[in-house]
Amino acid sequence: VPFSQQAEGLSHEALLRRAVSLVTDSTNTFLSQTTLALVDSITQYVQAMHTLMALQQRYVTSVGKMNPAEEDSVWQVIIRQRQEVKDRRDECKRFESNWMSAINLSELAAEAAYNAGADHASVMARTNLQVAQAQVEQVRQLSLEAEGKLADTKAEEMQRMAQFASRAVEEEEEDDVPEAY
Amino acid sequence: VPFSQQAEGLSHEALLRRAVSLVTDSTNTFLSQTTLALVDSITQYVQAMHTLMALQQRYVTSVGKMNPAEEDSVWQVIIRQRQEVKDRRDECKRFESNWMSAINLSELAAEAAYNAGADHASVMARTNLQVAQAQVEQVRQLSLEAEGKLADTKAEEMQRMAQFASRAVEEEEEDDVPEAY
Repeated sequence: VPFSQQAEGLSHEALLRRAVSLVTDSTNTFLSQTTLALVDSITQYVQAMHTLMALQQRYVTSVGKMNPAEEDSVWQVIIRQRQEVKDRRDECKRFESNWMSAINLSELAAEAAYNAGADHASVMARTNLQVAQAQVEQVRQLSLEAEGKLADTKAEEMQRMAQFASRAVEEEEEDDVPEAY
Repeated sequence: VPFSQQAEGLSHEALLRRAVSLVTDSTNTFLSQTTLALVDSITQYVQAMHTLMALQQRYVTSVGKMNPAEEDSVWQVIIRQRQEVKDRRDECKRFESNWMSAINLSELAAEAAYNAGADHASVMARTNLQVAQAQVEQVRQLSLEAEGKLADTKAEEMQRMAQFASRAVEEEEEDDVPEAY
C-alpha cells in the first residue's frame, strides 16, 4: 500500500496546503454562485426599470387623450410595475449581501492559502475575485444608468403633469370668466 | 431526466445554500487540520521544555561534582536543548498563524451560511469552532505551566550558580588569606 505509507509520511505543512486548497475551491464556487445570482437579479432590476419607464412615457404622452377609466387602468399597471421595481431592488440588496460575504471569504481564503504556502490556490482565488468584481461592476453600471434615466423621466413626468394641470386650470378659468362677470 | 429538470428548477437561494455548505465543509476541514498541527506543535514544545528543565536540574545538582570536561559536555547538551525549545516555539507561532486564519475563515463561513439560510451548516461550523478552541485552550494551558516552571528553574539555577560562585570565591579567599598576610 504505497499510497497510505506516503500519506502517513505527509507533514502538517503538506496537509494544511491541501486543506486550504479545498477552502479556496469552495470559496471560488460560492463566489461564482453569488455572482451569478447578483448579476441575474441586477439584470432583472434593470429590465423592470425600463418597463416602468416605457409605461410612464406612454402615460405622459397620452394623459390628455384618455377617459378617466382608461387613465385609471394605465395608472394601476404603473403602480404594479413600481412595486415590481422595488421588489427587484430588495432582491438585489439580499444577493449583494451574500456576494459581499463571498468576496470577504475569498479574500481571506486567498490570504490563508498564501500563508500556508499554497501559492497556486491563492493566485486562483485572486483571479476569481477579479473576474467576479468585473462582472458585477458591468451590470452595476447598467443599473446606475437606468436609475438615472428613471429619475429623469420622473422629473419630466412631474413637469408635464404640472403643465397639464395648469393648462386645465387655465381652461377652467377661461370657462369661469363669463360666469364671474 | 428528472434530476436535471429538478436542478434547472433550483432557485438562486437553493444554489447559494448548497455552495455555502461546501464552504463550511472545507473551513471545518481546514480548521481541524490547523488545530491538529497546532496542538501537535504545542505538545512538542511542552515536551522540549520538560526535557530542558530535567537537564538543567541535573546540571545544577551536580555542578560542583563534575570535572571541567564533564561540565562542558552537559552544557553543550543544554545549549542544544535550548535551541530545540526555541525552534519548537517558532513552529508553534507559524501554526498558530494558520490556525487563526482558519478560525477567522470558519467564523465568516458560519455567518455567510446563516445569512444564506443554511442554518444547519452554520450551526455545524460554530460547533466545530468551539471544539477547536477548547482543544487548543487545553494544550496552551500546559504550555503556560511549563513556561512558568522553566522561568522558576532558571531563577533557581541562577541562585544556585551565584551561591556556588560565592562559595568558590570564599574558598579562594580562604586559600588566599595566608598568602595575603
